[in-house]
Amino acid sequence: MIVEVISVGTELLLGQIANTNAAEIGAALAEAGLDSFRQSAVGDNQDRIAALVREALARGDCLIITGGLGPTQDDLTREAVSAALGVRLIPDADFEDHLRQWWEKRGREMPASNLRQAERLEGSTFIPNRRGTAPGLDLTHDGKRIFLVPGVPEEMRPMLAEWIIPRLSAETGSQTITSRVLRSWGLPESEVAERLSDLYARSQPPTMAFLASGGEIKVRLTARAASTAAALELIAPVEAEVRQRLGAAIFGVDAETIEGVILGLATRRGWKLGTAESATGGSVAARLVSVPGASAALVGSIVAYSADIKHNVLGVSRQVLGKGEVSQETALAMATGAARLLGADVVVAVTGWAGPEPRGQAVGTMVFAVLTPEDTRARSLAFPGDRERVRAYATGAALHLLRLGMAGEWW
Amino acid sequence: MIVEVISVGTELLLGQIANTNAAEIGAALAEAGLDSFRQSAVGDNQDRIAALVREALARGDCLIITGGLGPTQDDLTREAVSAALGVRLIPDADFEDHLRQWWEKRGREMPASNLRQAERLEGSTFIPNRRGTAPGLDLTHDGKRIFLVPGVPEEMRPMLAEWIIPRLSAETGSQTITSRVLRSWGLPESEVAERLSDLYARSQPPTMAFLASGGEIKVRLTARAASTAAALELIAPVEAEVRQRLGAAIFGVDAETIEGVILGLATRRGWKLGTAESATGGSVAARLVSVPGASAALVGSIVAYSADIKHNVLGVSRQVLGKGEVSQETALAMATGAARLLGADVVVAVTGWAGPEPRGQAVGTMVFAVLTPEDTRARSLAFPGDRERVRAYATGAALHLLRLGMAGEWW
Repeated sequence: MIVEVISVGTELLLGQIANTNAAEIGAALAEAGLDSFRQSAVGDNQDRIAALVREALARGDCLIITGGLGPTQDDLTREAVSAALGVRLIPDADFEDHLRQWWEKRGREMPASNLRQAERLEGSTFIPNRRGTAPGLDLTHDGKRIFLVPGVPEEMRPMLAEWIIPRLSAETGSQTITSRVLRSWGLPESEVAERLSDLYARSQPPTMAFLASGGEIKVRLTARAASTAAALELIAPVEAEVRQRLGAAIFGVDAETIEGVILGLATRRGWKLGTAESATGGSVAARLVSVPGASAALVGSIVAYSADIKHNVLGVSRQVLGKGEVSQETALAMATGAARLLGADVVVAVTGWAGPEPRGQAVGTMVFAVLTPEDTRARSLAFPGDRERVRAYATGAALHLLRLGMAGEWW
Repeated sequence: MIVEVISVGTELLLGQIANTNAAEIGAALAEAGLDSFRQSAVGDNQDRIAALVREALARGDCLIITGGLGPTQDDLTREAVSAALGVRLIPDADFEDHLRQWWEKRGREMPASNLRQAERLEGSTFIPNRRGTAPGLDLTHDGKRIFLVPGVPEEMRPMLAEWIIPRLSAETGSQTITSRVLRSWGLPESEVAERLSDLYARSQPPTMAFLASGGEIKVRLTARAASTAAALELIAPVEAEVRQRLGAAIFGVDAETIEGVILGLATRRGWKLGTAESATGGSVAARLVSVPGASAALVGSIVAYSADIKHNVLGVSRQVLGKGEVSQETALAMATGAARLLGADVVVAVTGWAGPEPRGQAVGTMVFAVLTPEDTRARSLAFPGDRERVRAYATGAALHLLRLGMAGEWW
């Protein structure tokens, strides 16, 4: 079964909101093993909605349409689908009563415009709305399945999970699609792709895809099978091979984050964690604090933005600073000073220059030091892009180098 | 001119990321007065991309396609457009040299797969990529304009703003739509809407819209006219009235940020700036560091996440901490301690509890203290939502309270 997703709403075309409904529906379909090859967004215009509905029905077996079911004049999805299919809209007396009671219970009179929500496409069933007044519609037409659901995500979500997906799964006896995402840092995307090119080209499952974001390269392995367990069995040998080829560059799987991995390592070993930050200005610490339970390991951070603070608070000597605020010596002294002041066992220090103008150092020069009970080492990296991007990459790099040091995988 | 937006990437269909590119492009087109009636997303499949390109060109005059331009085997947009239009892909020797130099400068050899990025559609022009290796492509074919840009938002964005929109505006001679966004903090959206309700209801330009995001309420005034200057003239009297009614709640206009406003105030007065953070974990400092030239005023920050660090480093007495780590007394002592240690004239301190579980304090309780040469005051606020959201709101609130204190607009 091929399912198309249509989102109705001029606010989507104007970019006033991002289309999170399409993403959520796509994720639910994939998890249920249902194919979806196209998502479309269209404005609150009856003819254009109707044209899109006709095109989508010609391509797919099932249509999920979100939005345009409200009571106002610009809610036109019911009318557009009626026109596209040549199916009448008929008032539903039971539902009119239900609506009136809904408003009465809230001690208010129902605005007349709300009566439009009691109209349904002939032959369709209402999908109950637990969180609002606009019901969904469920219709089979010429052998095709069509679902109309509200655009408000909180109202759409239960209809998707409790009505649409169970029905489609039952009707198709669909197989499950299961993915494992291996997350890596430190190798360029092209290098990852080259090391895995023969696995990528294999014709047997799982399929492989690469995704680059924020300095991370993700390798997604996907298999379709009768059950999640059977799909994971197809994935396992390829995952083992990918892990072997990418080695320590792989830091986590699926929703695991680098900050979560670091706090897990620190908590297991009983290490107190701190940071000493100049160019990143506290964002490394902020990423660590984002993990629930961070206080079990993280004690604090010194943001030493000026040279005076590096000297007065962290105890970096004027001699070392004189040779270069952005240097491996300064980074090492920052890490040592922060460990002493914070009483931390593990510290990552960052100093660098994010621009906008070059200042002795090229923009994007970043120096890191990692201190653990086992060793203390520095490393310099250069990042492309503007100030914001350099700082984002540097924050990620600080976390990843910290993890490598903590795991004894020194550079 | 009718512009269609196509997003390529299986990760969109699988719902692994939301389609923010389509929203950003839609917003930019609307602001430039260009019509857009359809957005589509399709997976990394050459035939399906090609089919969508053909359909979209039959409907519109211009096509903006994002994604699928990277170096890996699943990047197929160039090939699909080539097939859809019957236009050859040809290697570009100049661009190959450019790519080789890009990699050489970074001290690494170019993986062979990157050469694919040096292929362009015959008759097309490369759109330079300031932030990565994948160039965009700009092509006119049978009188239709076609732009291919990368899917990574940071790489797409400058191509859209600096290349595509200026060219489309010039080619269509479209009327300018100009907006001024007045940014406020501290009044609830309903209060802002009530104070401005008569201005909102006016039938003359400018139109007014409210946008709530991250605790800020933005009032957008928009007018369409032959020139930007003419539009701004329509906006000016209404802007003056809005400013008068919302008073000190308005902190900036358009792209002005609260962190930029704070650093401007500090720099003008010669004040050294610092932060003392517990629950926000360094994110207040990180926001300030994001401003180019932050070092002119910002000296540093102490992230005192544990009680020990609050005592040992910031000098908050055990007695005060014993009465409550999340209290106005603790926040005031953190501010005073950080001012002394950092040698700062102005400090904002934050302590609070972001959850996930209640811990003596309700989740979302946040206490702030602001210290300036004129006064030192504390304030408690409660924020709804989960850990991430509470921390984001608290970071914003810390900055806004800091600005109010610095401006002498004490609560």
